[in-house]
Amino acid sequence: MCQIKNFGIVGGDKRQLFLAESLLGDGYNVLLAGFDGLRGQGFGCLSDMDTALRYSDAIILPLPGVRADKSLNAPLSDKPIYFSEAAQALMCEKPVFASQRDRLVRAYPMLSQAQVFDYAARDDFAILNAVPTAEGALELAMREFEGTVAGSRSLVVGFGRIGKILSKMLKALGSSVTVCARRPSDFAYIEALGYRAKNTAALSVVHGYDLVFNTVPALIFDEKLLGNTDKATLLIDLASLPGGVDFESARALGIDAFRALSLPGKCAPKTAGEIIKKTVFSIIEEVNR
Amino acid sequence: MCQIKNFGIVGGDKRQLFLAESLLGDGYNVLLAGFDGLRGQGFGCLSDMDTALRYSDAIILPLPGVRADKSLNAPLSDKPIYFSEAAQALMCEKPVFASQRDRLVRAYPMLSQAQVFDYAARDDFAILNAVPTAEGALELAMREFEGTVAGSRSLVVGFGRIGKILSKMLKALGSSVTVCARRPSDFAYIEALGYRAKNTAALSVVHGYDLVFNTVPALIFDEKLLGNTDKATLLIDLASLPGGVDFESARALGIDAFRALSLPGKCAPKTAGEIIKKTVFSIIEEVNR
Amino acid sequence: MCQIKNFGIVGGDKRQLFLAESLLGDGYNVLLAGFDGLRGQGFGCLSDMDTALRYSDAIILPLPGVRADKSLNAPLSDKPIYFSEAAQALMCEKPVFASQRDRLVRAYPMLSQAQVFDYAARDDFAILNAVPTAEGALELAMREFEGTVAGSRSLVVGFGRIGKILSKMLKALGSSVTVCARRPSDFAYIEALGYRAKNTAALSVVHGYDLVFNTVPALIFDEKLLGNTDKATLLIDLASLPGGVDFESARALGIDAFRALSLPGKCAPKTAGEIIKKTVFSIIEEVNR
Amino acid sequence: MCQIKNFGIVGGDKRQLFLAESLLGDGYNVLLAGFDGLRGQGFGCLSDMDTALRYSDAIILPLPGVRADKSLNAPLSDKPIYFSEAAQALMCEKPVFASQRDRLVRAYPMLSQAQVFDYAARDDFAILNAVPTAEGALELAMREFEGTVAGSRSLVVGFGRIGKILSKMLKALGSSVTVCARRPSDFAYIEALGYRAKNTAALSVVHGYDLVFNTVPALIFDEKLLGNTDKATLLIDLASLPGGVDFESARALGIDAFRALSLPGKCAPKTAGEIIKKTVFSIIEEVNR
Repeated sequence: MCQIKNFGIVGGDKRQLFLAESLLGDGYNVLLAGFDGLRGQGFGCLSDMDTALRYSDAIILPLPGVRADKSLNAPLSDKPIYFSEAAQALMCEKPVFASQRDRLVRAYPMLSQAQVFDYAARDDFAILNAVPTAEGALELAMREFEGTVAGSRSLVVGFGRIGKILSKMLKALGSSVTVCARRPSDFAYIEALGYRAKNTAALSVVHGYDLVFNTVPALIFDEKLLGNTDKATLLIDLASLPGGVDFESARALGIDAFRALSLPGKCAPKTAGEIIKKTVFSIIEEVNR
Repeated sequence: MCQIKNFGIVGGDKRQLFLAESLLGDGYNVLLAGFDGLRGQGFGCLSDMDTALRYSDAIILPLPGVRADKSLNAPLSDKPIYFSEAAQALMCEKPVFASQRDRLVRAYPMLSQAQVFDYAARDDFAILNAVPTAEGALELAMREFEGTVAGSRSLVVGFGRIGKILSKMLKALGSSVTVCARRPSDFAYIEALGYRAKNTAALSVVHGYDLVFNTVPALIFDEKLLGNTDKATLLIDLASLPGGVDFESARALGIDAFRALSLPGKCAPKTAGEIIKKTVFSIIEEVNR
Repeated sequence: MCQIKNFGIVGGDKRQLFLAESLLGDGYNVLLAGFDGLRGQGFGCLSDMDTALRYSDAIILPLPGVRADKSLNAPLSDKPIYFSEAAQALMCEKPVFASQRDRLVRAYPMLSQAQVFDYAARDDFAILNAVPTAEGALELAMREFEGTVAGSRSLVVGFGRIGKILSKMLKALGSSVTVCARRPSDFAYIEALGYRAKNTAALSVVHGYDLVFNTVPALIFDEKLLGNTDKATLLIDLASLPGGVDFESARALGIDAFRALSLPGKCAPKTAGEIIKKTVFSIIEEVNR
Repeated sequence: MCQIKNFGIVGGDKRQLFLAESLLGDGYNVLLAGFDGLRGQGFGCLSDMDTALRYSDAIILPLPGVRADKSLNAPLSDKPIYFSEAAQALMCEKPVFASQRDRLVRAYPMLSQAQVFDYAARDDFAILNAVPTAEGALELAMREFEGTVAGSRSLVVGFGRIGKILSKMLKALGSSVTVCARRPSDFAYIEALGYRAKNTAALSVVHGYDLVFNTVPALIFDEKLLGNTDKATLLIDLASLPGGVDFESARALGIDAFRALSLPGKCAPKTAGEIIKKTVFSIIEEVNR
């Protein structure tokens, strides 16, 4: 990959604005397209699509990327954005950093010729995003729980990326943390890190917890388990759709349950933008090695 | 103090309800007066003023206690509550746990004959409340800051009760914490606990912090200091009124500044209620020793 | 596996004594063989080999298991212990929990018929032992370093089991921690957990660290890298043999370097014994499921 | 105080050498007297007493300062050092930073005319030294305890400087910490910081703790309390002489008890030297303000 000096950032939300700001702070040039809604607010690098695609050395597309109708995810644009053939041709000339590569290429087949790097599919991207996700979950818990996290008893179901970071934060704030997992090696890490371990497979009653966070993308909290869950428990589902909680049953049973999705972009767009930057630079470094 | 089996809880908000719940859980009887608004919601111990005062072994009054018009602070009561002479006479027969004792006695001079213990004036009460206060400040910071606390740079002005707990929580979540204080012994503790120390007296520029929390009840952030504060800083004032921030100047300068008061009752009424209980029992234990 | 009431513990060191104590505390019977050196010191469950093998429901062998001369690792025995054919026949009748299964079976081929469970080969065993290992490394660092860990700058090379736990402990004590790894996902976890990340592949100079811990079983600290390492650095090699430090070069260069092996048994035999127990019970539970 | 460029460091141990090194690193000149034992080891700033006193802008004396026979505490000197009248006269011309001022002036009355600052009597000095003290206690506990601190149950008696820092470190390493104190405000801090609180006055049995640290300079662990202390407890006395443990009774009862004094100088002379420097500079700054 030749050296990149000018980034074209096309579409996206606040995260892309913070990404632009961070790149500018590092000394790069940035051309922002798809942010007409911000015209007149003093953003120096606002541009149009053609300029951004033509005069940049690399393109960064948002997360999510394209909608079902093939329009670019660009909530701050005045009008829907579609990539013309000319636009796609320009994108074929330079590296494109995008999310959901397959979907993008299905919508714009010419881009199968482009050098598209899917930053959002990378493991490091997901791990770094576990921090704003866990913090967003903590914020939600603080807002909805009538006690303090300090001194609370919490249960984290799942010990993947989010479970690992979230249990660390809860303990750091003084919660007594139990983590549910399935593998002996996870049980060992859970204990070694100072939490109580529980087997998800044996989770038949949820009793004695103030805060319960599900991170497992499977229907763990079905009607039966919810029936054996303390009414006073605050239940937060962080698993991607369809999620891990039967919200209807929760409502019927009088259990406060919240679905929390896409927390990085909602709660910490600055950090989320910086994570995109970091991942893009990791890709560049790997390619150039 | 003779043994207490029945508590009369008169006036107050959600904190008193959690206090009642916690006392009931410990096996005490509770008579709640001043909560008519909750009638029909299944609270078993709702009572009227006379019953609560007459058939209890001790009375617990809320925080704040009485309003300027001498009415009891009882937001969940249908109508304003004033203590009749008969009520005051009943209160003179048993221990009364109250806040703002002087104000109460000024409003109801007969109570100068009563055994009134001011739980809210105690140091331990204030220290225990630093936890929900700090957590409420954290919640506010998480909501308003567009990055994560993890990886942020924060400044805590003041190293009293709240400063001590808040800086610990910020660091635990991964913020890089600087604490402003005035005394050499505080500087030493600040360093020994792993924060950076700064002299409040030398605070002429606030640069390079994402989050700034003031806990000092003096006008630290006046127009001049705000003029030397980064625009992107999020400023949270936790100092009791009149507070430590010139909010008008902050607004004029475009600095996001928030006043956050009475956080325990607002953010964590359950914990706040338990702290009242804990303090009342500490008083009882000390008296009985 | 039928229900186990009597454990035969054959051979081993202090860890086995703590293991025995812990099992006794849980209500099991224990027969200890190979500990004649302790006769007369009031250990109630000392026994002889035949009794221990015959009257137990399961056998636990030590770590390491057998020596090069086929004798059992039994430093607290008066004389070397070899398994007779009769002994092996007894062991074939019941579950045997051992370390280094292959080596054991090579030494005593009859045991290939036995139900031998290698507790030491399990991932959870290794993870749990990372705690006493990391703590042993910390103790060594505290003893040899002339400053405090608090306020120090430390480098942990490798982010496997020991690296994960050790970096957590160092940070918890106030060290500023950098971790070397190779995989992007590890870099992401390292950052997400609040350490600085560095690429092991790019480690050509070791400058500005008070404490350096190697956990990678490969010659990372060869003559060349040691030549670019601060003289004042304290270097601790935790990697299993042949280790990751050229100790001869270190000595020649005047760098303080220490090899630290088998720390759980040396520094925390009680914990090490409890980890054996925990792993044995995990195996039993899995088999019985 | 006029500006100081040249420090005369007279007497002392390794701490003073690290102090010298740190001052040199900051760009100051240093003249070391009382370290003849190091001659030929390449220390550039070795000097004699007269030169050090004469050509310096300020003198730093060691901790402890003078012995019962009036000789300076100078273990690395070939011969005992006494201050001649000429030496005292030189010291009267410039600031002297010393420990145990009263004792020094009793031994050398001419120095009552000198500007002697007692750095060791300051609160900030004692607080900063709580870090190496606590870490030294931890190292001792790790060495003597047969389990890991992680997962242990520990009791810290006293919540002064050392108690505050030590309980934090123990918890950070994963111990379950109980703290004994006497004041309600201390109980509140202990709870707010996440430890269990216990009243020292009610300490009649010490049961269920692996590690017990005494920091209170009063005979807490007398024969009676030791008689009610678990035999398996490791007891470490950090209180200054005469200490808080009846060691004879402990021995008779078979309880492992250790007296740990002067830990900063013994375990972390580098940090101890830097703390002297930091305190000296705090004094200079205060005087010059």
